[in-house]
Amino acid sequence: MKMEGETVDNKQVIFKGFIDRIPRETDMELKIGKIELKAPKGSGAFLVKNLYLSCDPYMRGRMREYYDSYIPPFVPGQAIQGFGVSKVVDSDDPDFKPGDLVSGLTGWEEFSLMRKHEQLRRIQQDDIPLSYHVGLLGMAGFTAYAGFYEVCSPEIGENVFVSAASGAVGQLVGQLAKLHGCYVVGSAGTSQKVDILKNKLGFDQAFNYKEEPDLNAALKRYFPEGIDIYFDNVGGDMLEAALLNMRIHGRIAVCGMVSSSSLSVSKGIHNLFSLIAKRIRMQGFLQSDYLHLYPRFFENVVSNYKQGKIVYIEDMSEGLESAPAALVGLFSGKNVGRSTGAVVEPL
Amino acid sequence: MKMEGETVDNKQVIFKGFIDRIPRETDMELKIGKIELKAPKGSGAFLVKNLYLSCDPYMRGRMREYYDSYIPPFVPGQAIQGFGVSKVVDSDDPDFKPGDLVSGLTGWEEFSLMRKHEQLRRIQQDDIPLSYHVGLLGMAGFTAYAGFYEVCSPEIGENVFVSAASGAVGQLVGQLAKLHGCYVVGSAGTSQKVDILKNKLGFDQAFNYKEEPDLNAALKRYFPEGIDIYFDNVGGDMLEAALLNMRIHGRIAVCGMVSSSSLSVSKGIHNLFSLIAKRIRMQGFLQSDYLHLYPRFFENVVSNYKQGKIVYIEDMSEGLESAPAALVGLFSGKNVGRSTGAVVEPL
Repeated sequence: MKMEGETVDNKQVIFKGFIDRIPRETDMELKIGKIELKAPKGSGAFLVKNLYLSCDPYMRGRMREYYDSYIPPFVPGQAIQGFGVSKVVDSDDPDFKPGDLVSGLTGWEEFSLMRKHEQLRRIQQDDIPLSYHVGLLGMAGFTAYAGFYEVCSPEIGENVFVSAASGAVGQLVGQLAKLHGCYVVGSAGTSQKVDILKNKLGFDQAFNYKEEPDLNAALKRYFPEGIDIYFDNVGGDMLEAALLNMRIHGRIAVCGMVSSSSLSVSKGIHNLFSLIAKRIRMQGFLQSDYLHLYPRFFENVVSNYKQGKIVYIEDMSEGLESAPAALVGLFSGKNVGRSTGAVVEPL
Repeated sequence: MKMEGETVDNKQVIFKGFIDRIPRETDMELKIGKIELKAPKGSGAFLVKNLYLSCDPYMRGRMREYYDSYIPPFVPGQAIQGFGVSKVVDSDDPDFKPGDLVSGLTGWEEFSLMRKHEQLRRIQQDDIPLSYHVGLLGMAGFTAYAGFYEVCSPEIGENVFVSAASGAVGQLVGQLAKLHGCYVVGSAGTSQKVDILKNKLGFDQAFNYKEEPDLNAALKRYFPEGIDIYFDNVGGDMLEAALLNMRIHGRIAVCGMVSSSSLSVSKGIHNLFSLIAKRIRMQGFLQSDYLHLYPRFFENVVSNYKQGKIVYIEDMSEGLESAPAALVGLFSGKNVGRSTGAVVEPL
């Protein structure tokens, strides 16, 4: 039992330095620091024990030395930052007291000194698994909700295509689309994922894009009448193929570009002429622009989850030691479903 | 004086056959056919004398053998089809009588047999130049209006960038944006066009893209705080540079892609990752989806024109013989302003 005020070891995953390629495990290193289990008086901060940490594709962007994005890069020599579920150990913020559970941006370390921030939320514990607060009910789930309802403007009966469909965002997009009365097809990169999409997540159809020599032909097969909504998590070749298969007045929600990642040198996207011929709306978005809708999302998803209408698949690794591999795995397609990077031993 | 019912020569510009590149004059040929100046009884059609014919970049798309677009290809061996202003010579349609002036899709020939169609409009002659009914008040002008107001969602004070700004569409977009209270910069391909943009069309700034070794740097210079609205008439390198210079929540109206034309083999577009980071809405559109707004557009533009608040520059060539060169010129940037392909001798 750790005591408040005691100085203890603090295991951390340190960001070593900027890169301009897909992350490798060696871009991070494990370090044992020291931390006093106390929020300094007058700091307004609170000290937390991190319970679950989330691995997300956007984190790759923070590994570049590029300051003009929507979120600043990681600081070399410091712990990786990411969404997590944490428990308050000591607090100098009157709104948080020891034992409170919170989800929000924290560090990839056992203990972090946190402050209130825009996406920090207090967790009311019930029968929802605690880790879901960084997945289904966290940034990934809310990205799916905001993107599907606010960006895709879905209509009942429309044809929806989701790429990286077994991922943390994609799996909820597909389920929301089914609940909305749409026909839903997902793509993924292994037969195991395809099986999960069809048999656990309720997609109408799913295919392994790695087994399709011609993505355009694959989409024509699954959408003989065309795609109304493409929820794009990957960019690249799949986006090019989707552009050719969109219906008139189709919508493309641009959520991620993991494939090309378009961060540095990348392949250009062809077939944009379809935007005109088919009057397509292609829109990038970030969940953080829709935070006012979070309460509505929370109520909707929790209710559907409790009724068994939504399921959520996590890919959980245990221990901070496994976090770098979990992050790297996102870009090689190793994870199924959400990758909750690390589970640190609970207090 | 040609008499109704008389059989006369009908000079025509014939489409020779499908191409998959930028049009050349030799893709068309002048032919003299024969036509009876009479609308066949029971046909419901009317025979017109064409007065002004319009050259537009979209026509290149109709020269490809591609049937899956929003408009079918031209028919090899028949006259090129395009928007024109015409005068009714004989009619089997009770709604049109000899002497009526109409604008709408017609043929590149002296006389055409026409039918009522979606974009056919009767012209009330007043002090607006007749040729403006295929330019300022025709498809090009209405494209500018629908694109700017319905796709760009402009706000007072926003920063607007227009490419191919001296073109048939661009020149009106810029003027509407100025009337709306925006800061407007246009790009064009000659110093003469740049001069017209600044000194005749009221753009705040304009530049010759051919003199800019780095389009990204050029846009940064004209938009130090970024672009809210990019009205894209060209695609290609300029679109890539604009993507880098958009502001958060910017909008890109995709109106044309003359540069790459993305019709066959073309260069892919980089920097689409900006769509996410800056939450950009990029939307293709066609004026034909907004025809219900035409009366409002007509009233607005005519009123502004009569008050001297809108001007319109045409690039007019005389005679059907000059029409192929006028069309080809669109893709080499030879024309300033609207290119009204041909003026056929009036009745």
